Amino acid sequence: MSSTFGHAFRIHTYGESHGGAVGVIIDGCPPRIPITQEIIQTALDRRRPGQSEIVTPRKEADTAEILSGVQDNITLGTPIAISVRNTDQRPGAYDEMAAKYRPSHADYTYDAKYGIRAASGGGRSSARETIGRVAAAAIAQQILLAHFPKIEILAWVKSIQHLQANVNPETIDAATIEANIVRTGDPTMVEPMIEHIKKIRSEGNSVGGVIECVIRGCPPGLGEPIFDKLEADLAKAMLSIPATKGFEIGSGFAGTLLTGSEHNDAFVMQDGKVRTVSNRSGGIQGGISNGENIIFRVAFKPTATIMTNQQTVTSDGQNTELQGKGRHDACVLPRAVPIVEAMAILVLTDHLLRQRAIS
Amino acid sequence: MSSTFGHAFRIHTYGESHGGAVGVIIDGCPPRIPITQEIIQTALDRRRPGQSEIVTPRKEADTAEILSGVQDNITLGTPIAISVRNTDQRPGAYDEMAAKYRPSHADYTYDAKYGIRAASGGGRSSARETIGRVAAAAIAQQILLAHFPKIEILAWVKSIQHLQANVNPETIDAATIEANIVRTGDPTMVEPMIEHIKKIRSEGNSVGGVIECVIRGCPPGLGEPIFDKLEADLAKAMLSIPATKGFEIGSGFAGTLLTGSEHNDAFVMQDGKVRTVSNRSGGIQGGISNGENIIFRVAFKPTATIMTNQQTVTSDGQNTELQGKGRHDACVLPRAVPIVEAMAILVLTDHLLRQRAIS
Amino acid sequence: MSSTFGHAFRIHTYGESHGGAVGVIIDGCPPRIPITQEIIQTALDRRRPGQSEIVTPRKEADTAEILSGVQDNITLGTPIAISVRNTDQRPGAYDEMAAKYRPSHADYTYDAKYGIRAASGGGRSSARETIGRVAAAAIAQQILLAHFPKIEILAWVKSIQHLQANVNPETIDAATIEANIVRTGDPTMVEPMIEHIKKIRSEGNSVGGVIECVIRGCPPGLGEPIFDKLEADLAKAMLSIPATKGFEIGSGFAGTLLTGSEHNDAFVMQDGKVRTVSNRSGGIQGGISNGENIIFRVAFKPTATIMTNQQTVTSDGQNTELQGKGRHDACVLPRAVPIVEAMAILVLTDHLLRQRAIS
Amino acid sequence: MSSTFGHAFRIHTYGESHGGAVGVIIDGCPPRIPITQEIIQTALDRRRPGQSEIVTPRKEADTAEILSGVQDNITLGTPIAISVRNTDQRPGAYDEMAAKYRPSHADYTYDAKYGIRAASGGGRSSARETIGRVAAAAIAQQILLAHFPKIEILAWVKSIQHLQANVNPETIDAATIEANIVRTGDPTMVEPMIEHIKKIRSEGNSVGGVIECVIRGCPPGLGEPIFDKLEADLAKAMLSIPATKGFEIGSGFAGTLLTGSEHNDAFVMQDGKVRTVSNRSGGIQGGISNGENIIFRVAFKPTATIMTNQQTVTSDGQNTELQGKGRHDACVLPRAVPIVEAMAILVLTDHLLRQRAIS
Repeated sequence: MSSTFGHAFRIHTYGESHGGAVGVIIDGCPPRIPITQEIIQTALDRRRPGQSEIVTPRKEADTAEILSGVQDNITLGTPIAISVRNTDQRPGAYDEMAAKYRPSHADYTYDAKYGIRAASGGGRSSARETIGRVAAAAIAQQILLAHFPKIEILAWVKSIQHLQANVNPETIDAATIEANIVRTGDPTMVEPMIEHIKKIRSEGNSVGGVIECVIRGCPPGLGEPIFDKLEADLAKAMLSIPATKGFEIGSGFAGTLLTGSEHNDAFVMQDGKVRTVSNRSGGIQGGISNGENIIFRVAFKPTATIMTNQQTVTSDGQNTELQGKGRHDACVLPRAVPIVEAMAILVLTDHLLRQRAIS
Repeated sequence: MSSTFGHAFRIHTYGESHGGAVGVIIDGCPPRIPITQEIIQTALDRRRPGQSEIVTPRKEADTAEILSGVQDNITLGTPIAISVRNTDQRPGAYDEMAAKYRPSHADYTYDAKYGIRAASGGGRSSARETIGRVAAAAIAQQILLAHFPKIEILAWVKSIQHLQANVNPETIDAATIEANIVRTGDPTMVEPMIEHIKKIRSEGNSVGGVIECVIRGCPPGLGEPIFDKLEADLAKAMLSIPATKGFEIGSGFAGTLLTGSEHNDAFVMQDGKVRTVSNRSGGIQGGISNGENIIFRVAFKPTATIMTNQQTVTSDGQNTELQGKGRHDACVLPRAVPIVEAMAILVLTDHLLRQRAIS
Repeated sequence: MSSTFGHAFRIHTYGESHGGAVGVIIDGCPPRIPITQEIIQTALDRRRPGQSEIVTPRKEADTAEILSGVQDNITLGTPIAISVRNTDQRPGAYDEMAAKYRPSHADYTYDAKYGIRAASGGGRSSARETIGRVAAAAIAQQILLAHFPKIEILAWVKSIQHLQANVNPETIDAATIEANIVRTGDPTMVEPMIEHIKKIRSEGNSVGGVIECVIRGCPPGLGEPIFDKLEADLAKAMLSIPATKGFEIGSGFAGTLLTGSEHNDAFVMQDGKVRTVSNRSGGIQGGISNGENIIFRVAFKPTATIMTNQQTVTSDGQNTELQGKGRHDACVLPRAVPIVEAMAILVLTDHLLRQRAIS
Repeated sequence: MSSTFGHAFRIHTYGESHGGAVGVIIDGCPPRIPITQEIIQTALDRRRPGQSEIVTPRKEADTAEILSGVQDNITLGTPIAISVRNTDQRPGAYDEMAAKYRPSHADYTYDAKYGIRAASGGGRSSARETIGRVAAAAIAQQILLAHFPKIEILAWVKSIQHLQANVNPETIDAATIEANIVRTGDPTMVEPMIEHIKKIRSEGNSVGGVIECVIRGCPPGLGEPIFDKLEADLAKAMLSIPATKGFEIGSGFAGTLLTGSEHNDAFVMQDGKVRTVSNRSGGIQGGISNGENIIFRVAFKPTATIMTNQQTVTSDGQNTELQGKGRHDACVLPRAVPIVEAMAILVLTDHLLRQRAIS
């Protein structure tokens, strides 16, 4: 359903960019999981605007408040509500946008769907909506830590426009990614990427790229055979992130250039476990994890908000021009990395709890 | 949930490849929609093995029986059950497979998940499972015809391994696609593709490729803002098809190479309607259809079943070798085209009915 | 959703009384549960028409076929489809009913809802629909046996019209109930109840009554705090059975005549367990089982099908008269006992699996 | 799912009695429905403690804040979050309760389920949880007003312990009910009921009773045939209200004393509409509304909180005594009337939107 994600571990998000608050209810969280406001806040700070010189300078405090379901830093098993107030309301900056449909934004489609639209900001299509996802994932992460401590979920910037990072998903670690403001996994590409983003921004333009993600230590057996295949739920999760245009797992689109004998992952016994020699499957076979690293990539289009003149129409059907104003991210990928991780955590936690029900 | 797809228009599939039957229950179908057994059968015949010289010669009658929910070729509004008997049971051909995990199949992961596995065939991971989806989509198609006659959904083979078809999604028609056994949309590529598949098959090998799909005439306003974005549901639908490794919409992964000013789709009034000058959004903005053509691509890996020796392990943990036997598709794409269309129809119908609830 | 029941253990039923078949898909069943066709058949035979001299003489073979999800009498973890063919089609007996709305049946409301209606029999409102529920519960029962062998679920006829049985829910056993064709738990009331039903039937009339059900050995902790309270799900389950008009748990409506000090169940330690001295709560507190016996009652109205002249209207809006014809149950309660048990089993199994997910 | 209710019109509630806040997210609300904070507040005030001399004197401001989904008093179609701060925290009053299980409360079962429990108040089992339901229903009510203005939903106190009100569901109006603090529909019983409640309270005791509810002007065709029968969803909704022990519709349990010829509702044409001469069906046949008044009754047990000594056990398994302290409702029925109405409104609105999807 529209604003609900997950079956056993379910989250419900709410909030426009410029209303009273954005937030989330988490239902189905096991009891007695340790969680603090600080853990959630740390997660939120990674996706916050204004965190570095290459993201939007917009200031958002994004202070999370836990309203229910937690007592003395322990979950109660009941719904956990987390709320973040909207404080930095500058509707004036968006006045022109209220009347003109911003190209490649959701202004027109919201009007088409609802016959009404939040007067300022992007409404539900704002990146602020992802706050609820990240907060929920911070709690889900605690479940993984408590029950499946071997699981590691890491995402990084794989490319910015034509600039490709060279990263080994087997060995990349969080410190390497967090050590740079682009959140790429390749130290040699940090400077070129930063310079490119600055240059693009100085032109009032924007760029996109690809984020790669690995799930290490996932036990075999997660995912459901038919519609709720683990990769299908990951695909949906990733395509639900604003600005995404594609998803591929394992060999992905490039795998279509191989033959079967080149592509198949041979099985071999190793330390008493069934392992695969290669991993073109990307850690999932028939919709179910096989114990190998789950590796996938997500394509992000260049940010739709740009500072140059664009042809568009008004909400009452007149051709016009729009010049971007206000604050914008010339490249959303550094801030999208924690969101990709958050959605991966949510999918995995949901499937772990689902698997328990039948085990 | 595992074997359920959709919210307003819901399907539940069942069936292993070699049990008594495979089938589907469709719940939420509006009443008074005309449907015949022949319409369903025609749809099933498009996905049937043995239909041409380039697909598996395995014979499957695939005769659909409507068990409920339809009277005098009109839907009653109650659940529609459709069943297809499994008749061509040759478990002998699969004996070796029961003991050895076929590389890049789901044998191992089913065992890991359930601690048990259908002794022959691929169980639920068999392509036969898609029968229920195609049958359900044949009914959904009738809803579209009755209520939204302008909607056209067409898929075609965009590439077989390195062989690329050149197809215009604006103008391609069903006749062109169905006129060739590859189901490509580019008549000049029919012969090269057929020859390539035959050559690969003669080598006991297999190939994959990309299927492209267009939804024309979709009204603006379909799709939900957050998790049930139209592209997110399409992505999940496509990644739920066996052998898929990737999904992209509109500009997709290639769009990450553009800047924002190159990528944005300018709006313009045309015949009193809000239209976009270009369509890199792929017909969906903010998760909601904008009235332009919805265009997406799906990557299919090369078929895992090949006829050459492969290293693998037995279900009791011994290293061994497996030689493929029996019947196989050297390339699943010609038969996957109707399945891609079916899943697109199911997503669209579900969202059309969901939109009605709030309109 | 309409024809779906349960969250972790989910069933989807289909089928009209006079179409090709009725049946069920069970999704979410754990793997490696032993089940045979005979176990299902035995369960179905308890609800079958024609089983005794006080139920409808209509003959229905009701032979269940397992179409998927089971291999060598063991569940695979995949959806289990069970189908029962409709064989005794005598649409002629229902011709008059097709044109005239039977009082207190669902003929008119189906027309009002769907604008169409199954031409004969009661469509989905037929008691045949419960076949799928009973078959699914036979499998759920096997899960309980395998994992929670102390749980016992027993229902019996508590009253037929004014005839009240005196039954102790603590000690009643299945043998006592099944030893008589009324399925009452009070041997002294068997003959009076049989005679009363026969007399009522001879008058072309019908009677209802109350079925009581006990769940013994239920572990504490099942049920969800708010909307999915265990008693709320039981209430829904029971009111979903055709012909039911009421549900009460523990002290029920009579409990409204007590004061709090009379009604409260004092706690006491017993054998190291928290127990209650009395059980006016009916085994559930705050929506969650407390380990005491769960006891509830379900009211069934007198069968709507009677053999006397009744005032009614035609489907095209003319006042008319209807005389009941064909075969009917003068009292559905003996056959409803296994259906009450089945729905209780389904609710309990669902909540047991749900509880596992968070434990 | 635990804290979610509804399918097309869905609400998710959260909040313990003594955490930061209680509240609700409403998803699936149609756009362009007028709603104000005042309308919600007025609804909440009807369920508020301290509103009269016969309910708990506990003060709760219960000020509702709309955090999202509404702009300029019009719904946007996106999730509506409503929050009510918990302000009157007096955990001291509950200290003894934290260590001792209150008889017929949910203290023990929460511990049994979760292994942890909110240290004070009733956690999720507190009546404060119903704030979210009432707020959501205030919005649902606006949908009904906008689209189905003829629908009227009214509940009243039918009995307090042995004191029975005489009310005609056809003609009772809101003014009569709201004119007295008991919220009974029978002016002659107001004084006796008030006196009885006061007397019971003065004894430190409590009483329960029955609330009756009528839905007038409901169009025929609402409700789903099998599991989501309209009466089944109403039964679940009512049994999800704290302190309820029973539900009956139309003739209810008393209907089991009639014969079929006495019980059946004859059809007759009236003003061109299909009507029933009597209404023992209670407005629903086969799970679907028939256009007559929907009438049901809900049993409420006497309040579990009493001021006399009670035998109980501590959370660490010692027999002990508990003396009730603090503030309590000697009779919850006056405040439960708006909650019964709220749940009825939610069920009806959900089914109205669901019916739209297939119409």
